Amino acid sequence: MPDNPDKPPGPLAGVTVLDLTTMLAGPYATLLLAGLGARVIKIENPNSPDPARGNSLFLGRDGVSATPEHDDDLSLAILDRGRNKEAVTLNLKHPEAHAIFMDLVRRADVVVENFSPGVTGRLGIDYARCREVNPKIVYTSISGFGPDADPTRNKAVDIVIQAMSGLMMASGAEGEPPVRVGIPIGDQAAPLFATIGTLAAVLRARATGQGQQVDVSLLGTMSALVAAEPFEMERRLGHATRSGNVLARLAPSGVFPTADGHIAISAPKDVFAAGLFRAMGRPELIQDERFSSRAARVRNHAVLHEMVGAWTGAMDAGAAAALLTECGVPNGPVRDPADAVRDPGLLARGETARLEHPVYGAVEDVVAGGLPIRMSDAFTGFDRPAVTLGASNGDVYRGLLGYGQDELERLAREGVI
Amino acid sequence: MPDNPDKPPGPLAGVTVLDLTTMLAGPYATLLLAGLGARVIKIENPNSPDPARGNSLFLGRDGVSATPEHDDDLSLAILDRGRNKEAVTLNLKHPEAHAIFMDLVRRADVVVENFSPGVTGRLGIDYARCREVNPKIVYTSISGFGPDADPTRNKAVDIVIQAMSGLMMASGAEGEPPVRVGIPIGDQAAPLFATIGTLAAVLRARATGQGQQVDVSLLGTMSALVAAEPFEMERRLGHATRSGNVLARLAPSGVFPTADGHIAISAPKDVFAAGLFRAMGRPELIQDERFSSRAARVRNHAVLHEMVGAWTGAMDAGAAAALLTECGVPNGPVRDPADAVRDPGLLARGETARLEHPVYGAVEDVVAGGLPIRMSDAFTGFDRPAVTLGASNGDVYRGLLGYGQDELERLAREGVI
Repeated sequence: MPDNPDKPPGPLAGVTVLDLTTMLAGPYATLLLAGLGARVIKIENPNSPDPARGNSLFLGRDGVSATPEHDDDLSLAILDRGRNKEAVTLNLKHPEAHAIFMDLVRRADVVVENFSPGVTGRLGIDYARCREVNPKIVYTSISGFGPDADPTRNKAVDIVIQAMSGLMMASGAEGEPPVRVGIPIGDQAAPLFATIGTLAAVLRARATGQGQQVDVSLLGTMSALVAAEPFEMERRLGHATRSGNVLARLAPSGVFPTADGHIAISAPKDVFAAGLFRAMGRPELIQDERFSSRAARVRNHAVLHEMVGAWTGAMDAGAAAALLTECGVPNGPVRDPADAVRDPGLLARGETARLEHPVYGAVEDVVAGGLPIRMSDAFTGFDRPAVTLGASNGDVYRGLLGYGQDELERLAREGVI
Repeated sequence: MPDNPDKPPGPLAGVTVLDLTTMLAGPYATLLLAGLGARVIKIENPNSPDPARGNSLFLGRDGVSATPEHDDDLSLAILDRGRNKEAVTLNLKHPEAHAIFMDLVRRADVVVENFSPGVTGRLGIDYARCREVNPKIVYTSISGFGPDADPTRNKAVDIVIQAMSGLMMASGAEGEPPVRVGIPIGDQAAPLFATIGTLAAVLRARATGQGQQVDVSLLGTMSALVAAEPFEMERRLGHATRSGNVLARLAPSGVFPTADGHIAISAPKDVFAAGLFRAMGRPELIQDERFSSRAARVRNHAVLHEMVGAWTGAMDAGAAAALLTECGVPNGPVRDPADAVRDPGLLARGETARLEHPVYGAVEDVVAGGLPIRMSDAFTGFDRPAVTLGASNGDVYRGLLGYGQDELERLAREGVI
């Protein structure tokens, strides 16, 4: 890949990743590896490419649309998760494909896959086979419920993972229906842990010459995050486990309405509570025995939160925030997601980023996640747009594997690639 | 550290981490490094240790309580985030502490800190100083809003990050108040990205002999995840951005009430929709022009979801799940978090784990997150309980740094450690 002479290499420069993943969870893991500088080669079946290429919405020369309007429109999903990746076609079901895949494995450091259990074995590309040709290979498998799950157990999709992990019953208030979180977090936890595991295994492989399989499940990773809260123990001690927008045990803490929206305030410690009472113009409340200690504030959380809400409700969020900040009280406005991700500070730090069409550029104001990791002496981030299906066949099959042009054309004619 | 002869080393065996972090976000990152086999040395000021040691709830010989009841009770927070870590005391404000810290830096691979902006500089332990004594050091800084944020900008706590990232306005339905997610996700995204960045930088340092600073912010990482959904574009095309518990664009998909709870169903594709109609005993709906294509189902999502909810509402979740699974429809029960994290499959895979008191063991059924990454040829997970403040002073100051016992006692007397 051409290096940009103005940027230092990424931290994973020199690491080659074969990306067999599709949809969201798998491709997000390989997207992070790409943004950290790895060479990520996305491998797709020419007859059935990554379904994300066909998911609404689409971006093309005339902007965003619900359905593709031109041949060169690309889905926002692939424009997001295809950044900084090369894309080749390979029909793994074709008898000739196996040798080609193993040619790639020989030159790679990492394989990432999220096939249903059993598929890699049937295709002859499972970890055991890959390890034979390259003992250092790190083979990362992202599954719904682990490799030994009942094969009739259904696909793990975000909403199912949110439901089964307990996440939906952690939000909202007692007696309310479950709450679906409006971002695909059930698909996002697994790729983060998969990336961590992959990098740890690559470190180990470099030290020992021996790779391994890394196994991460969607349900397991989401549940590990849910388990951060000791729900059963809270219930055992009579505390609400679903407390809506306020946090009794950290009173005064919660989300409160303002004249023009809402504001989040967190003031559990004495010094913060005192600051809050000053901001409210009620310094006498600092010594009020209902609120003068942390335990007292927790006991009287209901009336305390009512008073805070009455105060915030009478002014705009900006005015409340200014007073609170002046008094040293942790606070922040509730922002709409479309506005939040366009925060100029986030864009400047590459934590969010504008998406570009490979031909037409930033033809619409589409903002996606950036790579929210900055390094002092390495480039991190996305600087190459997604490419179309098979666009890198030449670079990879000729450039990396050394196949001749005639061979490439034959393979294409015969449906191998 | 004594190796367990029955287990292969972890993938990060040989990596030494100096952990200056406190509270949740920082310690969760170093917890993951510890569970992957790194030697993590938690460094606390003896006069003001990690506040997590004082956070309700507590576990001791008589079980869980809201306040500590015995001298050797430990907080659930430290029992969780202190696993597999050593703990030493060091008063970084004492003039003699600087040389001791640099002694540690010389022998370490990683430093992780989450101080407020400016603190490490004032203490003389910032990246520039550490790099002088150890050019390979990877120095990971976790902040609320980045190192250049306005220092008067308030502490980033979970609820503030959820508010400002747009997450709260992604859940719930149009016109409803913001929704606080009931797990501290605003504190959990940053440590995952920090761990990724740390490992990538360690890989790079091993290749080049040069370390670097890794910079991750709570707001940036949470916003990067929120930005996975193209909210602005959805709104531009007239789609609801807050759709509550159903997903019109993937109809039929959502959370539906059952006689005894709720069930999540996701059946956007023709084959899944057909399976759902069969499970409902309504095969004629497959050809019903209101539902016979994906576009039609999206158009008629309201009546479709009403029909699905009427069907699920008449039976228990288990019965609905059995019928749906038999017909190949992705589904899963909505589980309560206390039950979800105790799923025997998760515990068996170490994705969730029982917490143990270092002296009294698993004296109560407390379940926390495990390390949800399994490897074929390395041990991953938590096999050592948290320790008390300064418990590792001997192992580290004598064992690692080679200080004599008299010196150790002097340092303690003079409040250096």
